Amino acid sequence: VSKVRVGILGATGVVGQHFVRFLQGHPWFEVAVLAASGRSEGRAYAEACRWVVSPEMPAAVRGMTVQPCGPGLECDLVFSALPSETAGPVEAALAAAGHRVSSNASAHRMDPDVPLLVPEVNPEHLGLLEAQRRARGFGRGFIVTNPNCSAVALTLALKPLADRFGVRRVSVVTMQALSGAGYPGVPSLDILDNVVPYISGEEDKLESEPRKMLGSLDGGTVRPAPIAVSAHCNRVATRDGHLEAVSVQLGRTGVGPEDVSEALASFRGRPQELGLPSAPPRPIVMRAEADRPQPLHDRDEGGGMAVVVGRVRACPVLDVKFSVLGHNAIRGAAGAAVLNAELLKAEGWLEA
Amino acid sequence: VSKVRVGILGATGVVGQHFVRFLQGHPWFEVAVLAASGRSEGRAYAEACRWVVSPEMPAAVRGMTVQPCGPGLECDLVFSALPSETAGPVEAALAAAGHRVSSNASAHRMDPDVPLLVPEVNPEHLGLLEAQRRARGFGRGFIVTNPNCSAVALTLALKPLADRFGVRRVSVVTMQALSGAGYPGVPSLDILDNVVPYISGEEDKLESEPRKMLGSLDGGTVRPAPIAVSAHCNRVATRDGHLEAVSVQLGRTGVGPEDVSEALASFRGRPQELGLPSAPPRPIVMRAEADRPQPLHDRDEGGGMAVVVGRVRACPVLDVKFSVLGHNAIRGAAGAAVLNAELLKAEGWLEA
Amino acid sequence: VSKVRVGILGATGVVGQHFVRFLQGHPWFEVAVLAASGRSEGRAYAEACRWVVSPEMPAAVRGMTVQPCGPGLECDLVFSALPSETAGPVEAALAAAGHRVSSNASAHRMDPDVPLLVPEVNPEHLGLLEAQRRARGFGRGFIVTNPNCSAVALTLALKPLADRFGVRRVSVVTMQALSGAGYPGVPSLDILDNVVPYISGEEDKLESEPRKMLGSLDGGTVRPAPIAVSAHCNRVATRDGHLEAVSVQLGRTGVGPEDVSEALASFRGRPQELGLPSAPPRPIVMRAEADRPQPLHDRDEGGGMAVVVGRVRACPVLDVKFSVLGHNAIRGAAGAAVLNAELLKAEGWLEA
Amino acid sequence: VSKVRVGILGATGVVGQHFVRFLQGHPWFEVAVLAASGRSEGRAYAEACRWVVSPEMPAAVRGMTVQPCGPGLECDLVFSALPSETAGPVEAALAAAGHRVSSNASAHRMDPDVPLLVPEVNPEHLGLLEAQRRARGFGRGFIVTNPNCSAVALTLALKPLADRFGVRRVSVVTMQALSGAGYPGVPSLDILDNVVPYISGEEDKLESEPRKMLGSLDGGTVRPAPIAVSAHCNRVATRDGHLEAVSVQLGRTGVGPEDVSEALASFRGRPQELGLPSAPPRPIVMRAEADRPQPLHDRDEGGGMAVVVGRVRACPVLDVKFSVLGHNAIRGAAGAAVLNAELLKAEGWLEA
Repeated sequence: VSKVRVGILGATGVVGQHFVRFLQGHPWFEVAVLAASGRSEGRAYAEACRWVVSPEMPAAVRGMTVQPCGPGLECDLVFSALPSETAGPVEAALAAAGHRVSSNASAHRMDPDVPLLVPEVNPEHLGLLEAQRRARGFGRGFIVTNPNCSAVALTLALKPLADRFGVRRVSVVTMQALSGAGYPGVPSLDILDNVVPYISGEEDKLESEPRKMLGSLDGGTVRPAPIAVSAHCNRVATRDGHLEAVSVQLGRTGVGPEDVSEALASFRGRPQELGLPSAPPRPIVMRAEADRPQPLHDRDEGGGMAVVVGRVRACPVLDVKFSVLGHNAIRGAAGAAVLNAELLKAEGWLEA
Repeated sequence: VSKVRVGILGATGVVGQHFVRFLQGHPWFEVAVLAASGRSEGRAYAEACRWVVSPEMPAAVRGMTVQPCGPGLECDLVFSALPSETAGPVEAALAAAGHRVSSNASAHRMDPDVPLLVPEVNPEHLGLLEAQRRARGFGRGFIVTNPNCSAVALTLALKPLADRFGVRRVSVVTMQALSGAGYPGVPSLDILDNVVPYISGEEDKLESEPRKMLGSLDGGTVRPAPIAVSAHCNRVATRDGHLEAVSVQLGRTGVGPEDVSEALASFRGRPQELGLPSAPPRPIVMRAEADRPQPLHDRDEGGGMAVVVGRVRACPVLDVKFSVLGHNAIRGAAGAAVLNAELLKAEGWLEA
Repeated sequence: VSKVRVGILGATGVVGQHFVRFLQGHPWFEVAVLAASGRSEGRAYAEACRWVVSPEMPAAVRGMTVQPCGPGLECDLVFSALPSETAGPVEAALAAAGHRVSSNASAHRMDPDVPLLVPEVNPEHLGLLEAQRRARGFGRGFIVTNPNCSAVALTLALKPLADRFGVRRVSVVTMQALSGAGYPGVPSLDILDNVVPYISGEEDKLESEPRKMLGSLDGGTVRPAPIAVSAHCNRVATRDGHLEAVSVQLGRTGVGPEDVSEALASFRGRPQELGLPSAPPRPIVMRAEADRPQPLHDRDEGGGMAVVVGRVRACPVLDVKFSVLGHNAIRGAAGAAVLNAELLKAEGWLEA
Repeated sequence: VSKVRVGILGATGVVGQHFVRFLQGHPWFEVAVLAASGRSEGRAYAEACRWVVSPEMPAAVRGMTVQPCGPGLECDLVFSALPSETAGPVEAALAAAGHRVSSNASAHRMDPDVPLLVPEVNPEHLGLLEAQRRARGFGRGFIVTNPNCSAVALTLALKPLADRFGVRRVSVVTMQALSGAGYPGVPSLDILDNVVPYISGEEDKLESEPRKMLGSLDGGTVRPAPIAVSAHCNRVATRDGHLEAVSVQLGRTGVGPEDVSEALASFRGRPQELGLPSAPPRPIVMRAEADRPQPLHDRDEGGGMAVVVGRVRACPVLDVKFSVLGHNAIRGAAGAAVLNAELLKAEGWLEA
């Protein structure tokens, strides 16, 4: 069977590079188009791109000519790694021209008719797409988004608790990795021997996106879950992997840490049922040690697609608390958008 | 006027070194005795001690002979920088022999008749000392303790809120510096490109000590404040300065972030009234920038004796949230015990 | 065909762990014995060992019982990851009892009848083994060693130059990774925001070992190469990968940087001829960029078994200079000893 | 006596900030003018400048209006912290208009009639100024430069050896701090867990500037010293302080490490004779420990104006080797230019 031809918008940036890397050898998708902004257009990818991810740039893409980010790209599906400032109109124009867009950008995430999708959490939100097409006149095109890198890990950990016990309030403090800021990103003089207790725009996303993802379909829109989320976001000197300290008030009493651990450990979602290529066998991996998860040791669990939870214990203020870790560049960005695309394909949304 | 002769127990360890450094040139105290465990006894301090703090070891102490940690030390006041495992009986024996002990060790902190003292927070807890002397037969000796390095900063920030608005629940996530683990302490392989979401014993201390400090005297004991505290403690790759993300539920409604900021900014305590030598002019320094406090830039505020607060804003889960930073080795250890001793002296507790 | 049963001495230490990891799935060798010092004896490996390398401890070894480090181990070949202080007599006793020992310890490296072996550099030094057996009464046992982690990379880079042009003088300055100091190793307070310009014993090894390896067999001993080596050894805050700045005076004039580059790039050794399982396709990988090799990006080249060279240019003081990088824990330790064992097997030295 | 009014060109950059900080409370100079490029002109310094050095921006400069970098500045002396790309013509125009310029920029360093000045090394090179004025028609204006940050430390260490024994060849490998690259400078993703073996333009400067500084006046120009210097320049993850591993061939034989140590330790220069305000009591501070100097512990020696040397020992390739450390932002930049200005004033070059 021939593979789906995919394009990457913003291919020369660090998130775009992660898409290139993550899609190497993908069983369903092949990278047919690399697109980026004006300066890079028309140049060979190896020339246009300062490659900063490991390992080396794949040989197959080195000679590909970088194309402009607009309608007419010769591919069946477009991944958007555009910066949020420019993603909005570009993605809309592509969808209007019939392109299917799986975006990592924040521009359309909170649009009421755009799925903010994590396949283990809310696959039913693809039900928004018909309404989106009608309302926007997109024809066969559409836009699907994945959440902010910190929100993915948090929401994956909340999902089994919401299903099993209900979730009412969540307090989360993040310790986020450098790669989340892109390249050149955080100056070394700002972070060596330091922590920065602020990341622009991040707390808003982390307080709002989980509520949409855990919300319920209501006609052509999503009714947010009635959950209060409070976030403190910090930048720390790690390369990859966002660590989050989470406290949760559940929807009912009498639930102990062991119940929570069991719910997390046994959780499986649609990607696991469908056996999607990028789905980790267990979306949530539990660690029993007192001092895990740790970014250095746990970020690559499940190929970077699993989130790792540890230290589940009672919380004297809310009900239960734990630490959760997710690979921001994989499960929080490129891998998230690819898994979304795999769900789209498995459920027939990529057919002509 | 002649100075008070002071001794340092555990003088060769990293906390002991901070005492030596902090006491250099002190207007009231002079270091007369350096004491440490068996191996170091009888050796010159410069020989016995692997000095790891900056700047260089003061010339005045290099040749002093290290003495054993037991009764009979020729000094009026003893600072204890002993490890908690050994501090308990040693400090008790010294107090029983008439020594006044200002301890940084955790051994006696939660004893009902031992003040867990921060002079800006609970100077009236010195009222426990008479009962302590009677109950333990200490004669003119006594034990006063200072809190855990993370608990100092948190409690200083809570104090004005408790006074002005009441405090009911506190959620705190720490990002603690390497020096808090002593020397050799954290192996570099454990922390470069990493965060460790666990510090042995730390969360218990941070959940219990503030309740005692903010509690009220009740005869010869302290009734803990009815505050619930939940802590997540993390180790990060900073040299000094514990950063804490704090959310607080206040005792009454209708209090906005600006009220909280005002209460914090205007706070002064007994050390400021008394003009104690190590008291910072403002115990709490507020930063208006979106991205402060930061360990690198703010830990030395007020000579390391001020705590720095920023990012005061509404909390969607509790009432208000902010970030607070304190220098763990100064306000959280050596400086804390010295400030306690200054209060003791100012209030007449060091007289014969 | 059945695999060779191998044992690991010092299996619980960090170098021992690298042996365990490196030997997973090895086509010729299977780990049959894990041995360590007194405290660990008799315990399951998973209990006895604080595992610090990535990824997780292989399931196959978790339940193996740790054995004492002495004669009688049931295996055909013993890898020694013992600390140098204890390795000397233990390895000798094992060889005397008929064990074949491939050691990473420094104890016997400079013994005149012990091969200090890098298969690409001096495979002919295995010719010492007969004399060693005779002189020491080892019977079928013997000891083969691999060099210091910094010396491997340097010597591999010097070998093609020695063969092609001659080498007279070498000035080398190392910037060595933390893992080279083992675990717990370098305290984080010693190295965060710092460089330590000293590593105990390292400069001596780096100045002497290359001379032996590049020397010639002379009966039952090795005549060191007439090369002067001067080393400065520094510890820097990298996890893995020793970077070395090297200047070389060649044996003849008229040799340009491009000649040197060509000699390095085209170099192949016995392991490549024999197709040994752990041999990298190219023992020396050249980088053309101005700013390579870098520890972060290049240490895993060839599975950590290649050394990476860049910045070859003329030297105003000697003749030519360049930077070279080798993975200290793989090519500089576990992988080195395993490659030595592969050569031993390929050349018939492991037969009964 | 009234102070000399000084201006700072490039005042908003990180080097400019170091000038501002270093000149606080200077006994001879007062900051009267802050100048920077177009974007900052006309704004208050506190608005125009993202302050990144410690401690906080001095209150006295916060409200000063940033002026353009051209002739007409109301001050007696101008410090140039301009980037080298723009410094050349700007400095020349200022000197032509009668300004005295003490520059940290590289633009004019190697001009034959411009002193490349370190007051302890070559104060007599001020003798170039008359020729410079005549040749360029500068009137009362002139340009004096200080060397590259790595070259200062090296040349200070070479000076006493050149005087006492002669110096023929020097091999130097640097491990340079992040602040040397300015702000934002080195991206954190490029340096955390890494070393970069390349700094653009740095090796050329380090190979040529010491030869000029150690050269002799020959009429209106400098005859470079007949010394061969070979440099490898590396960027490491330290905040401040360039560490250099140096090997030296001396001008005569029979000189031992102890002779070299004595020559370094006893060295004093013109600034020490004159008692210049920024002169450290000892320009070279020797450390006897096996593992010093270290950037973290030694960079602030002599207020950052001393260089620290340790590990003096015999070199098997050249004659002697040692490690030297200098604070790149102080002795290597702002402090260097200020010390030059102090020498100019002491020798009468700032008089009308």
